[in-house]
Amino acid sequence: MDLATILGVVLGFVVIIGTILHEGDLAIFFNIPALAIVFGGMTCATMIHFSMGQFLGIFSVIKKTLLHKTIPPQELIQMMVSYAAINRRDGALALEQEMGKIKNPFLVKGIQMLIDGQDEEAIHELMDLEIQYLEERHAMGKKILDFMGASCPSFAMVGTLIGLISMLSSMESPDEIGAGMAVALVCTFYGALLANLVFLPLGGKLGQYSKVEKISMEMVVAGVCAIAKGESPTGVREKMQVFISAKRREQLKAKV
Amino acid sequence: MDLATILGVVLGFVVIIGTILHEGDLAIFFNIPALAIVFGGMTCATMIHFSMGQFLGIFSVIKKTLLHKTIPPQELIQMMVSYAAINRRDGALALEQEMGKIKNPFLVKGIQMLIDGQDEEAIHELMDLEIQYLEERHAMGKKILDFMGASCPSFAMVGTLIGLISMLSSMESPDEIGAGMAVALVCTFYGALLANLVFLPLGGKLGQYSKVEKISMEMVVAGVCAIAKGESPTGVREKMQVFISAKRREQLKAKV
Amino acid sequence: MDLATILGVVLGFVVIIGTILHEGDLAIFFNIPALAIVFGGMTCATMIHFSMGQFLGIFSVIKKTLLHKTIPPQELIQMMVSYAAINRRDGALALEQEMGKIKNPFLVKGIQMLIDGQDEEAIHELMDLEIQYLEERHAMGKKILDFMGASCPSFAMVGTLIGLISMLSSMESPDEIGAGMAVALVCTFYGALLANLVFLPLGGKLGQYSKVEKISMEMVVAGVCAIAKGESPTGVREKMQVFISAKRREQLKAKV
Amino acid sequence: MDLATILGVVLGFVVIIGTILHEGDLAIFFNIPALAIVFGGMTCATMIHFSMGQFLGIFSVIKKTLLHKTIPPQELIQMMVSYAAINRRDGALALEQEMGKIKNPFLVKGIQMLIDGQDEEAIHELMDLEIQYLEERHAMGKKILDFMGASCPSFAMVGTLIGLISMLSSMESPDEIGAGMAVALVCTFYGALLANLVFLPLGGKLGQYSKVEKISMEMVVAGVCAIAKGESPTGVREKMQVFISAKRREQLKAKV
Amino acid sequence: MDLATILGVVLGFVVIIGTILHEGDLAIFFNIPALAIVFGGMTCATMIHFSMGQFLGIFSVIKKTLLHKTIPPQELIQMMVSYAAINRRDGALALEQEMGKIKNPFLVKGIQMLIDGQDEEAIHELMDLEIQYLEERHAMGKKILDFMGASCPSFAMVGTLIGLISMLSSMESPDEIGAGMAVALVCTFYGALLANLVFLPLGGKLGQYSKVEKISMEMVVAGVCAIAKGESPTGVREKMQVFISAKRREQLKAKV
Repeated sequence: MDLATILGVVLGFVVIIGTILHEGDLAIFFNIPALAIVFGGMTCATMIHFSMGQFLGIFSVIKKTLLHKTIPPQELIQMMVSYAAINRRDGALALEQEMGKIKNPFLVKGIQMLIDGQDEEAIHELMDLEIQYLEERHAMGKKILDFMGASCPSFAMVGTLIGLISMLSSMESPDEIGAGMAVALVCTFYGALLANLVFLPLGGKLGQYSKVEKISMEMVVAGVCAIAKGESPTGVREKMQVFISAKRREQLKAKV
Repeated sequence: MDLATILGVVLGFVVIIGTILHEGDLAIFFNIPALAIVFGGMTCATMIHFSMGQFLGIFSVIKKTLLHKTIPPQELIQMMVSYAAINRRDGALALEQEMGKIKNPFLVKGIQMLIDGQDEEAIHELMDLEIQYLEERHAMGKKILDFMGASCPSFAMVGTLIGLISMLSSMESPDEIGAGMAVALVCTFYGALLANLVFLPLGGKLGQYSKVEKISMEMVVAGVCAIAKGESPTGVREKMQVFISAKRREQLKAKV
Repeated sequence: MDLATILGVVLGFVVIIGTILHEGDLAIFFNIPALAIVFGGMTCATMIHFSMGQFLGIFSVIKKTLLHKTIPPQELIQMMVSYAAINRRDGALALEQEMGKIKNPFLVKGIQMLIDGQDEEAIHELMDLEIQYLEERHAMGKKILDFMGASCPSFAMVGTLIGLISMLSSMESPDEIGAGMAVALVCTFYGALLANLVFLPLGGKLGQYSKVEKISMEMVVAGVCAIAKGESPTGVREKMQVFISAKRREQLKAKV
Repeated sequence: MDLATILGVVLGFVVIIGTILHEGDLAIFFNIPALAIVFGGMTCATMIHFSMGQFLGIFSVIKKTLLHKTIPPQELIQMMVSYAAINRRDGALALEQEMGKIKNPFLVKGIQMLIDGQDEEAIHELMDLEIQYLEERHAMGKKILDFMGASCPSFAMVGTLIGLISMLSSMESPDEIGAGMAVALVCTFYGALLANLVFLPLGGKLGQYSKVEKISMEMVVAGVCAIAKGESPTGVREKMQVFISAKRREQLKAKV
Repeated sequence: MDLATILGVVLGFVVIIGTILHEGDLAIFFNIPALAIVFGGMTCATMIHFSMGQFLGIFSVIKKTLLHKTIPPQELIQMMVSYAAINRRDGALALEQEMGKIKNPFLVKGIQMLIDGQDEEAIHELMDLEIQYLEERHAMGKKILDFMGASCPSFAMVGTLIGLISMLSSMESPDEIGAGMAVALVCTFYGALLANLVFLPLGGKLGQYSKVEKISMEMVVAGVCAIAKGESPTGVREKMQVFISAKRREQLKAKV
């Protein structure tokens, strides 16, 4: 669970709603037709731009990004080192009883290949392909989110124009302009909010997450391959430490 | 037939028209002169930017993109495997009777070359050239659609300015501003709608389609060349499976 | 003569003027001071950005682009094949009497070098340099036209601001805003029109034209060099056919 | 302490406040809710886009950029030359008493490794990694500052829209538009000011600073490695002079 | 002295002032506080973004760009050929009496190195470094001018917002909007004018100038190095002609 994302979205809406309450009436900011044209227009444009499957897949990508738990690298190394010990002592088949405790599906797949007795090269090739697929899915997800972020303000403008034209054409005196204009501008408000508080930053987060996830998966591959070659627990630890130093950069980045 | 595109365009216009009906009067949003200047101006700018043939060709590209049916990869492999069997059993000439059942023109061309007894190298060269031409046509089509999408809002602005200037110069009191402004803004509405719901997403879809079509064509080339070398049905299947895994990525992309 | 460009500009202005006539009075759209500031400002900015010679050269580039006639590739091959026959039968000097019939100056230069008895390598080097110069001129021309297209709306804004500020500062009541605003907005109208109907699409066309012209010139070089090596008419045709297939792509692009 | 940055920010706010005082009343430009939505919205979007750690780290990066003192290159060479002399005369352990006088933590780390007797290769590898981490932190810092600079005007627009909609919907006559509009526009003002006077130029400065700091650190590495190899003071000076000439470019850049 | 730049700036302001005089009163367009916020804000942002030295250096770069006289290539070759003759006849020391007549400081430096008897390699290395520094200074100068051009409209907007907010908050009736709005918009006018007529085109010209100056300096290096090797006047001319053909491209570019 990514705290910054949840906190950012929640606090963001608290700030927005707080400002609205301070300025006036929350009710005029809830406008179903305005939401329908901004969200509906954006959704339709996304469906035209991408394929049906790519469009439906974006929700899954967002959910996984927010909920998926990356195993901390030190913990991951500890797990692999203990699997290496079991493998050395009791053979690969003994890893079967560890399978139930693993939650990460990528790690499960790796251990399963060890149990099936596949050689290092086959494991490496298949798992690398898996990483490549994930990266492509993430890149496509980021592309869709960025398109959504660019599309929202456009359909907000379309909605505002519809409101404005309708209001202006039926207006009898400039004195009436106020209320009609307010309703029309709610579309623009939705567009700016969805783009800048939801879609564009979420696209950025997906890019950040993709980098971290990739390093974690590469550590699993390095560990599983080392076990497949029958290396000692120490050897497995060393092979995976290489990525830790690369990982630590991220941590340093975050701290300084 | 690409469902997402059709659905996106239809639903998009349903949302827009629904919003208009909810806001007021549909009639003021049908404005032939406004449509003439946005569509006419964009068309003229496109004709100046590109050549006559490139401009006329864009409609054909759009139509093909929407209507052309890509053969599902598994089905394509099945077809090629059966052709390989016929070729092995009865010789290339026996493929003639299969020709009538094939609808994909690129596949027809490949089989025809097999029947004509051309060697693998000649087939490969000619069909690769064909793929390259198609990619260039698609890239040019995307470039034209993107230019159209950028041109629409510009000519919408020109139209709105004409309406605004005419209205302002003949206006006797600010109280009259409403109706005239409404008419002038209809141009801006058309420009925003055509760009964001039609041309820009269609350009994006053409790019997606181009990738899928290319993989399908490369599978045909791989299959036809394998048959030309007299490979067994199993060999043909293997040669084409390579692309399936590449193709499956797309499917995974869509599903996750 | 490029039909699409002429047609695009003429039809574009027909659409614009037709819309103006439909909306109101054509007279208010003819405004010499507005034209002076948009065109004058853009011209001055272009003179500051580029050198005097580059700026003056842009008109020549535009004129050549519109009027220069590229020889159709099939006709060009036919000509070179007949020159090859004359060269073989009567020697290079006999080409002198063909010179009067050739209109393309690049082809004239090539034939002259054949008559002067220069060897293939010298011809290749000099004519390639000529092509390179032409490409650089075209690229610089496109850069200037793109700058002009970006500069027009900026000076249109400057002009509109001058009109607006003058009008607002001397205005006694908001009721007078109409007419003054109309005049001020004519600048914005000129800027949007010049950029989107003239300079930006013309820059795009220059890029397209540059590609076609380059292929045509490379065919001339290939033909002249083949004649200089004393190749047979058939050999010359073959050498030039290579480009035809590249050229045909353009035609395919236009047709599909 | 970077004078230009401090001076730029202070003078910038002097100019802004001076203009406000000249135009009217400073009080209406202090608006806590407006500041809350611009700053709060931007902060939340940044938290969603980046990770918690990366977001918190940006303040540290800014502070270090403004306060960190780069040792002038001539002074740095002089220091390293004297350390080389001490190292040659009394051995690496004698450097211990110099440690207290050094303030730059990167230089301290280098000297410590000399005292610990580590060989040149180990020192080079570790210190280069340190430089690489710093560059990555700076690049990430610049990316975050640029995102903040782009985010400010967006949330300023959201804030202005909230003010505008609230005001318009409760307005009874267009005559009341003045005061409400003024309050709504204060958000836009904050957004433009924060982006253009604070975040965007600060991002640029971080990029400039990163280059200068990197050269300084590379000089330290060159010097420490030369000492580790037991080179003479003259040799150390020569090794470091190479960077001086590269550094002098920066100075020339500044002077001409 | 670059005629096009001077002419462009002078004519540009003539066009602007002429339009203002035609529209109304020049006095309202002279507004010291408006100029102060646009120019002051931009200056402060530039100081924050770049270092103090880089910022102060920009004026020197602009002055040199406008006033520095590039020696025409034909004249430059003639000069070097005569120096080669003197060097051959009377030795390098005899060049001393020519020194007084040379105005170009880069050429002076080259001849001085000849008189000092430095060998070709040393001259080449030092002068190439000099060219590289110049290019870096020009590139940094262009970057600063482009930043200034982007910064002007931003601070113009800040100034306009201050004017607008002050005016709106103290306004008692919408009828007063005219005059206050006019003053506020003068800032926007300054920003658009400074960016589009001064900073952005000047940045472009600096880029053009940098290319021409570099070719001229490379010719000097080629000539001086040829003399240092004791080549004959004919040899020196040949070495420098290579650049003439490259230079002629520029001229062709300008003429066609």
